[in-house]
Amino acid sequence: MNRRMVFFTVGQMVVIEAVLLLLPLAVSIIYGESAAITAFAVTAAIACVAGALLMAVCRTKNKVIYAKEGFVIVALTWVVVSLIGAVPFVLSRDIPSYVDAFFETVSGLTTTGSSILTNVEALSHGALFWRSFSHWLGGMGVLVFIMAIVPNVSDRSIHIIRAEMPGPIVGKLVPKVKDTAKLLYLIYVVLTLVETVLLMAGGMNLFEGLVHSFGTAGTGGFGIKSTGIGGYSPYIQWVITVFMILFGVNFNLYYLLLIRKFRTVAKNRELWTYLSVIAVSVILISVNIYHIYGNVADTLRMSAFQVSAIVTTTGYSTCDFNLWPGFSRSLLFILMFVGGCAGSTAGGLKISRVMLLFKMAKNEFLHLIHPRSVSVVKLEGKQVEAPVLHSVSNYFTLYVICMCVAFALISLFDPMDLETNITATVTCFNNVGPGLGKLVGPAGNFSAYSGASKIVLSFAMLFGRLEILPLMIAFIPSTWTKR
Amino acid sequence: MNRRMVFFTVGQMVVIEAVLLLLPLAVSIIYGESAAITAFAVTAAIACVAGALLMAVCRTKNKVIYAKEGFVIVALTWVVVSLIGAVPFVLSRDIPSYVDAFFETVSGLTTTGSSILTNVEALSHGALFWRSFSHWLGGMGVLVFIMAIVPNVSDRSIHIIRAEMPGPIVGKLVPKVKDTAKLLYLIYVVLTLVETVLLMAGGMNLFEGLVHSFGTAGTGGFGIKSTGIGGYSPYIQWVITVFMILFGVNFNLYYLLLIRKFRTVAKNRELWTYLSVIAVSVILISVNIYHIYGNVADTLRMSAFQVSAIVTTTGYSTCDFNLWPGFSRSLLFILMFVGGCAGSTAGGLKISRVMLLFKMAKNEFLHLIHPRSVSVVKLEGKQVEAPVLHSVSNYFTLYVICMCVAFALISLFDPMDLETNITATVTCFNNVGPGLGKLVGPAGNFSAYSGASKIVLSFAMLFGRLEILPLMIAFIPSTWTKR
Repeated sequence: MNRRMVFFTVGQMVVIEAVLLLLPLAVSIIYGESAAITAFAVTAAIACVAGALLMAVCRTKNKVIYAKEGFVIVALTWVVVSLIGAVPFVLSRDIPSYVDAFFETVSGLTTTGSSILTNVEALSHGALFWRSFSHWLGGMGVLVFIMAIVPNVSDRSIHIIRAEMPGPIVGKLVPKVKDTAKLLYLIYVVLTLVETVLLMAGGMNLFEGLVHSFGTAGTGGFGIKSTGIGGYSPYIQWVITVFMILFGVNFNLYYLLLIRKFRTVAKNRELWTYLSVIAVSVILISVNIYHIYGNVADTLRMSAFQVSAIVTTTGYSTCDFNLWPGFSRSLLFILMFVGGCAGSTAGGLKISRVMLLFKMAKNEFLHLIHPRSVSVVKLEGKQVEAPVLHSVSNYFTLYVICMCVAFALISLFDPMDLETNITATVTCFNNVGPGLGKLVGPAGNFSAYSGASKIVLSFAMLFGRLEILPLMIAFIPSTWTKR
Repeated sequence: MNRRMVFFTVGQMVVIEAVLLLLPLAVSIIYGESAAITAFAVTAAIACVAGALLMAVCRTKNKVIYAKEGFVIVALTWVVVSLIGAVPFVLSRDIPSYVDAFFETVSGLTTTGSSILTNVEALSHGALFWRSFSHWLGGMGVLVFIMAIVPNVSDRSIHIIRAEMPGPIVGKLVPKVKDTAKLLYLIYVVLTLVETVLLMAGGMNLFEGLVHSFGTAGTGGFGIKSTGIGGYSPYIQWVITVFMILFGVNFNLYYLLLIRKFRTVAKNRELWTYLSVIAVSVILISVNIYHIYGNVADTLRMSAFQVSAIVTTTGYSTCDFNLWPGFSRSLLFILMFVGGCAGSTAGGLKISRVMLLFKMAKNEFLHLIHPRSVSVVKLEGKQVEAPVLHSVSNYFTLYVICMCVAFALISLFDPMDLETNITATVTCFNNVGPGLGKLVGPAGNFSAYSGASKIVLSFAMLFGRLEILPLMIAFIPSTWTKR
C-alpha cells in the first residue's frame, strides 16, 4: 500500500472541496443569508487548511498506485468529503443534528436523494444549492472531477476512475485518462446547461433551474419543495422526464455521437434494453393507474415521470405513487434494483449487469438441456470473458448480502414495519431516494429513523454508489499492512 | 426426447398414487366418514385405470433416459400427481373449490404447508391424513419413492433422482440407484416412526402423532388445529423442534452414521454451519423477545421452535411471530431464504449453496486486493469445480428472477400490501409455509387470495421445490421436438 499517495490524494480532494464550497457561499451572499455565509466560509477555510496540511505531510515521490490504492483512495475520499460536507448544514443551523446532516450529505453525494428534512422550504438558498450541487458532483464522481482539472495526472489514475465509476465493463474513451475525464465532464456540463435553459424557458428562475438540473444530471432527486416536482407545469415535468432518461444512458454513447459513430450507438444493446424496460413499464403502469387520472395525457405523464425517476434512480416524484395500486407499486419496487445503464450517473444493478445475469441464467439452462453444447455469453456483439462473468455473479451475491445486513440492522434499531424497512434499505442501497410505505414514500422522509439507522443507511448509500468493494477493501486491516 | 418412456413413468406414478390413496381411504373407513370414503375410493379407481392405460399405451423397449428426460419426468409427475391429489378434497366437499384443493395439495406435496383453510378442524380425518401424508411423500420425493419400490429400475434413473432431489452436489450413497433410494427411505421411515412414538409418549394419539411426524419429516407444516402447535405441551414442542432440525440435515450423514463413519460426520462443514445459523438466530431472537415471555424457558422454547420451523422451511408455529418485534421478524424473513442442508427434505436455497455463494463473493474480493492470487473454492475439504460454481451463481439469479415474476403477478391480481405479497411469494417459493403480515402470517391463511394468485403461488411452490429447472425445461416447446 502506497499510504502516502493515498492520503496525499485525499488531501488534494479536501482542498478541492474547500474551493467548491465557495459556490454555495456565493449563493448565500447573493441571497444575503448571514448564517449560511459564515457556515460555508468557516468550513471552506478549515477544509482548505486541513487538506493542504495533509498534502504537505504526505508528499511523496512514489506516485505509483495500483488497483488496491485506487479503491482505498475512492473509499476514504467519499467518507471524508461527506464528513466535511455535512459541517455547513450544522453551522448554519439548517440541519442542527450532525448525524442528520451527514445522512443528507451522503444522500446528496451518492445521488440518492433520500432526505431527513420535514420542511425543505425552510432551508437557506446556500444549503439548498449545496445539497443539489453535491448530486451533480457525486453523479460523475468526485475523483473523476480531480482527474479532469488537476495537472500532471498519471495514467495510473485509471485505477481511481475504475473504482469510482464501476459497472461490469469500464474503459477509456481516449488514450489519456485525463482527457477521458475531461471529455466526460464536458458532455455532463453541456447536458446540464441545456436542461437548465429548457427549465428556465418553462418559467423557473436560474436558481430553480440549476438546482433541478443538478438533481437530474446526477440522478439524485433533491428538490426544493415538499411537493417534489408535482407543483410544476406539465412542460417542466416532461423536460425532467426526458433528461432523467438521458442521464441514465452510458456517457460513452454521447462521445460516440460526438465523433459521429451513429451506427455504433444505434446498435447498442444496453441502450435498447434500457429504453424497452422504460417503455414496457410505462405502458403497464399506465394501464394500471388510468382509472385514477381518467385521461391519457395525465396518465402517461405521471407514469413516464415516475418510471424514469425510479429506473434511473433519480427519485423525483410528481405524485405520491405510494397510493397507486399494488401492481404499480410492486413494479416500481422491482425497477429500483435494475437501475440505469453502466457508465451513466444512475445507481442500481445497472442494465448491462442485469442483461449479463439473465444471459448467464439462460446459458445455464441451455447447457442442462444440451449438455454437450458450448455456449458463450455475448454483450454488444463481443464475447464476455469468464472472469468478468464471475465478478458479475459474485457482485450480485454481495449486493444481496449487503442489503440483508443493512435491513437486519435497521430492523434492530427501529420498529418500523417490514415494508418500510425493506424499501428504505433498497432505495438507499440503490441510490434511488423514496421508498414505499407512508413513512419513507415519496410524500414522507427518513426523519423518523433513529441515529443508528441513519448511519447504517448512509453507509448503505455509500456501499451502493461505490459498488461495495472499495469500502470493504478500505475497512479490512490487512489492506493497511505493508507488503 | 424419449417421450414414450416419459409418459410411461408418469403413468407408473399415477398408479402408485392410486395405491397410496388407499391409506387415507383406510383412515376414512376407521373414522366412518362416508363422504371421504367415496371420494378417496373413486379417485383411487380413476387414477388406477388412467395410469394403467397410460402405461399400456406408452410401453416401450427403449428405456434409455438422459438428463432431459429426467427433468421432464419429474416436472410432469409433480403436476399430474397434484392435479389428481386435489380431487378427493373436492369430492368429499372438504375443500369445495378445485383451485383451493390444488393449492392445498401442491402445498402438501412441495412440503410448503401454506393453507387456504380457514377452519382446519372441520376437515375429515381422511382429508387431514392425506394432506399431511403428502408432506411425507413430497419431502423425500415421489419419484425417489418409485425408485425404491418398483423392480427393474435402471441405473439411468439417477437422472430422475438428481432432478427431484436437487442441491449443488448430488451423489449416490451406494453403487446402485435403487439401493440408494431404498436406504434413504429406510432412514426416513425410521426417523418418522421414532418421532411418532415420542409424540405419543407426550399424550398424542396415533393419528395426531403420525400426522405431525409426517409434517415434521417432510419439513411441511400442515397441522390439524388452527392454533398450530401452540396448543400442545412444551414436551411435544421440544420433540418437534429437535426433529425439525434433524430432518433439515443431509440424509447422507445418517448413512455415514450407520456405517460408523463418525469422524466424517463430525467434520461436515455444512452441518456445523447449519447448526451455527440456528444457534445464533435462537440467541439473537431470544434477546429480542425476552420481554414478551418474561422467563428463560418460555423464551428459548418459542425462539428455538420458530427458528427451526423457518430455517428448515417446515413452517409450524407455536405462537404468532408476526406480533414479535421488527428485528425478530426481519431475521425470520431472511432465514426463509436460507433453508436447510442440501440432501435433506428442507426447501430454500440450502445451506451449502449459501456457503458457496459467500465463498465465491469472498474470493472475488480477495482477488481484487491481490490480483495475481489464484483462489480455489472448497467445500467439505474438496475443491468445487468451476461448472458447479457457475451453476450455483446462475441458480441464485434464476431464483431471484422467478420470485420477482411471481411477486409481480400476484400484485397484479390482488391488492394486498407489499409486505403480504412479498412474504407470501417468498414463503411459497422457499416452501416455508407462513408469511408475515396479518393475512398470511402464522395466525392467518391464503384464503383471501384470488384464484389466479393461488395458481401462481402453487407454481411458485413447485418451482421452488424442484429448483426451477425441471419445470422450465418441461414448459419450453423445443424440449418436445424430436432430435
